[in-house]
Amino acid sequence: MKKSYTVADYLLDRLAQIGIHHLFGVPGDYNLQFLDHVISHPQIDWIGCANELNASYAADGYARCKPASAMLTTFGVGELSAINGIAGAYAEYLPIIHIIGAPVLQFQRDGLLLHHSLGDGDFEHFSRMAKEVSVAQACLTPSNAESEIDRLITIALSEHRPVHLVIPCDVAILPLESKPAPLVLPTNVLSNTSLKMFIESARKKLTGTKKVSVLAGCLAERLNVQPLLQQWMDEVALPHSALLFGKGVFNENHSNYAGTYIGAASEVEIKNLIENVDVTINIGVLFIDTATAGFSHKLPTENCISIHPNEARVGHQVFTQIPMEDAIKALHQLTLSLVQQWSLPIINPPSLSPPLFQSSKSKLDQRSFWREIQKFIRPNDILFTDQGTSCFGAAELILPENCKFVIQSLWASVGFSLAATFGAQLAEPNRRVILLIGDGAAQFTVQELGTMLRNGLKPIIFLMNNQGYTVERAIHGPEQVYNDITAWDWTLLFKAFANQYPAFVRRITETEQLKCALEEVANCNQLAFIEVILPKMDTPKILDDISIALKNNMVEQR
Amino acid sequence: MKKSYTVADYLLDRLAQIGIHHLFGVPGDYNLQFLDHVISHPQIDWIGCANELNASYAADGYARCKPASAMLTTFGVGELSAINGIAGAYAEYLPIIHIIGAPVLQFQRDGLLLHHSLGDGDFEHFSRMAKEVSVAQACLTPSNAESEIDRLITIALSEHRPVHLVIPCDVAILPLESKPAPLVLPTNVLSNTSLKMFIESARKKLTGTKKVSVLAGCLAERLNVQPLLQQWMDEVALPHSALLFGKGVFNENHSNYAGTYIGAASEVEIKNLIENVDVTINIGVLFIDTATAGFSHKLPTENCISIHPNEARVGHQVFTQIPMEDAIKALHQLTLSLVQQWSLPIINPPSLSPPLFQSSKSKLDQRSFWREIQKFIRPNDILFTDQGTSCFGAAELILPENCKFVIQSLWASVGFSLAATFGAQLAEPNRRVILLIGDGAAQFTVQELGTMLRNGLKPIIFLMNNQGYTVERAIHGPEQVYNDITAWDWTLLFKAFANQYPAFVRRITETEQLKCALEEVANCNQLAFIEVILPKMDTPKILDDISIALKNNMVEQR
Repeated sequence: MKKSYTVADYLLDRLAQIGIHHLFGVPGDYNLQFLDHVISHPQIDWIGCANELNASYAADGYARCKPASAMLTTFGVGELSAINGIAGAYAEYLPIIHIIGAPVLQFQRDGLLLHHSLGDGDFEHFSRMAKEVSVAQACLTPSNAESEIDRLITIALSEHRPVHLVIPCDVAILPLESKPAPLVLPTNVLSNTSLKMFIESARKKLTGTKKVSVLAGCLAERLNVQPLLQQWMDEVALPHSALLFGKGVFNENHSNYAGTYIGAASEVEIKNLIENVDVTINIGVLFIDTATAGFSHKLPTENCISIHPNEARVGHQVFTQIPMEDAIKALHQLTLSLVQQWSLPIINPPSLSPPLFQSSKSKLDQRSFWREIQKFIRPNDILFTDQGTSCFGAAELILPENCKFVIQSLWASVGFSLAATFGAQLAEPNRRVILLIGDGAAQFTVQELGTMLRNGLKPIIFLMNNQGYTVERAIHGPEQVYNDITAWDWTLLFKAFANQYPAFVRRITETEQLKCALEEVANCNQLAFIEVILPKMDTPKILDDISIALKNNMVEQR
Repeated sequence: MKKSYTVADYLLDRLAQIGIHHLFGVPGDYNLQFLDHVISHPQIDWIGCANELNASYAADGYARCKPASAMLTTFGVGELSAINGIAGAYAEYLPIIHIIGAPVLQFQRDGLLLHHSLGDGDFEHFSRMAKEVSVAQACLTPSNAESEIDRLITIALSEHRPVHLVIPCDVAILPLESKPAPLVLPTNVLSNTSLKMFIESARKKLTGTKKVSVLAGCLAERLNVQPLLQQWMDEVALPHSALLFGKGVFNENHSNYAGTYIGAASEVEIKNLIENVDVTINIGVLFIDTATAGFSHKLPTENCISIHPNEARVGHQVFTQIPMEDAIKALHQLTLSLVQQWSLPIINPPSLSPPLFQSSKSKLDQRSFWREIQKFIRPNDILFTDQGTSCFGAAELILPENCKFVIQSLWASVGFSLAATFGAQLAEPNRRVILLIGDGAAQFTVQELGTMLRNGLKPIIFLMNNQGYTVERAIHGPEQVYNDITAWDWTLLFKAFANQYPAFVRRITETEQLKCALEEVANCNQLAFIEVILPKMDTPKILDDISIALKNNMVEQR
């Protein structure tokens, strides 16, 4: 007997059509029947995670490498455990199709006292919560299933943000007539009139200027305009920089690339190149506190042209209905016609901080560690950093070509990067994925080390052990016990996860050991887990610069 | 210079006043200054956890042993990671004061682009989400801090449910004039008229009856009426039973205690004692699906007297404004006056399932495991079970006197019990806390094993390793890969957490080994971690009975 085609199959076919081939999640009794269809689907692999928060981070990492990602949890407990990860994807523009296996539709309507509910007969609590952190929500019924699946997937892709799709377990297995036709994706709305007005206004703003700079942020990468942007920089000589929350958007080896801009915490030269100009062109920039050393950037709106996902601004004027890519193409052409009026300043290539005088020759510290990592990274690598000394240390790295740099500056959820690395490596099996994470952060999500091994993945993991939340020690309470964590034996722990799987494991305290290990890793075809012992109070230079800038900023504000 | 008294101190003094002496949580840059006051507070200890979900479970476990508990997270990321645990406490009536360190009040009002926000200038997303799973919410300001702290704590205690208290980091350190006066807690409202009417109605219902039974549920324990209830059963001879979601409410060694009632999945004798009567008196019972084998209980409303937290029912009549303790006292007196009309049936003491014929004499299986645990448990022990074979196996145990049995039947969040055990052991340092948890469940929250050790706690942990989600195999897809998990080396893993701390660690495959280990554990003064290898497809008898009842129920409904 031929198995009938169901709502579950329809949803899975839709996911496959948009390029999703892995479904992250955790089984639960409201999604087991849906899962049967996942297991038998020819194009979707089930990726069971140790818990739902980790699954959501993994889905986020996957969506950073693919058009979108999908995850499956159970009603109530599962979806709420994942909601921090979903909120991060919402804040940082990652499309995740979050599928929730729910109780039988009629049981919900009857308000039964079911497990995983709050026991009050109201089955919409969690959808209302999801409304705050997703761009669309639906509960599938026999009559709306196909249209709602299509609506949610379309919105997720066009808005680049998560959607919340509840599928009651009886609806999941309802038979459907036929497979879906290809999904027609909406194109972004372009108003030619608005675009013309924007170009005229930008021309007026730029004409007669002597100095112009370009600054990019994370949304340029998130909206996939990186190639257009780089082409522009290749063809028009303009000094350009990226926020830390956008690092990697530009080719960092380009002669006109100035380095990372962090407001008052920037190197003086970079700050001058970006701020001391007639016009700064901002592309997909979010001027958030942590990326601007506490809003210390000096870029008055009247001196800026700013390109946002669906609108462009010249000074205080706003032009709507202009997709980012059209605005960039227009500015590319416009600046090409004006480039003669600008003289390109001298731009020194960015460089790493020198070792400190008091650095020990043998014992590793932050500076010596990052100098070795700089030598280790290669073109096409994907680097994941966490919200601690790891992201501020990695901020200094000069990325080889086509390196992807992941930093979650806005949502800044500690521990995110470990599980996100897992998702990214699944999405990009042929690229080296490198995780740089502190011990405090890794404790949040450590389980997924095992899941990576189980799935045969081979990322390279640097566990920077500095005995607690060093990034917080830098902010407040350096010696307070609340910045201490439980001291684990990390290499033993990793071996317990690795159990039956091969892996490269080292514990490193000295620079020479690190050099040897990195050589071995470069040629080993196994997941590598390298615990690097770093001084408890040692902080990367950029974190120090930001701390100083924040203090000066506070003094100025008084 | 004397340090000034602040809002943070006021809040902490209030917590201490209501019997909270530990604050669970995770530091974050919006709560570090609050944390300084925690560290210097003479009566509150800071309990740093590995992540926020675990902290929320720990707070739940603590609230099961104390009047209430408190936890501290940071804005956005932290509070959302904890929200599943908070929802569980809401569903299951545990008061948790959830304190959230938030950005400077004026920064929120200005809608700044701060990290841990969604980047849209709206700082109330997460409070709106919390509204769905807490009974009161507040964001402290200079003018409302004291009154809102008092309001929230009072509501949490009177409603037995979580509250959501946002404390901007600048408000936390605002000076206050004076320490708080003792908190005046509201007493539950009793209407004497309503109580009289209830008693009359109950008398009418009970007069002339031949058979009456009493059934208790979890809310009797949650509302602290257990001693009253037991006194009643000691003085009036009535057959009585508890739902699994309420196990431990009664003294299980009492001659009139019938055993656990699970609807159609009950032992025939228990089912008869509870259902085949003229009137069943329900005390704090929630007839949820998992505790009734899918609503298979046959207890028509017209044959019931039901006592809820603030109301009492006789058949379809509802009497409001009657606190549970007053209703119980009234029924105690009433039944004492009527007891002559009832003849007490023969009640056989509950017993454990016998070993299966095919059981191996040496290799452990579910039945032999639980028989050993039965011998091991002692009066005053606290037993934590998780939502898997562990809770269904433990359901059969006959609890020694004053044993506390924890099962999260309604919210049923897998992994909960591991971190909740941690919280309970902190609250009850002088009682034995025993955790019974499967390998699938333990993977969700494993980090807190380390935190228990760091805090010098000594619970006894049984890790039931049956290679995945066996409880789900029993429901659906026994051989499906989605019910498999990553195979960890559990004893090695535990040693990595234990690192510098002493602990008793064993891996057990045979009954004799288990017997030896249990003897040693009973006399060792260390945290014990015992990995018990159980067959992948072996399920406890009660889980089998429930599965059969569910299937019969489905057939009946057709």
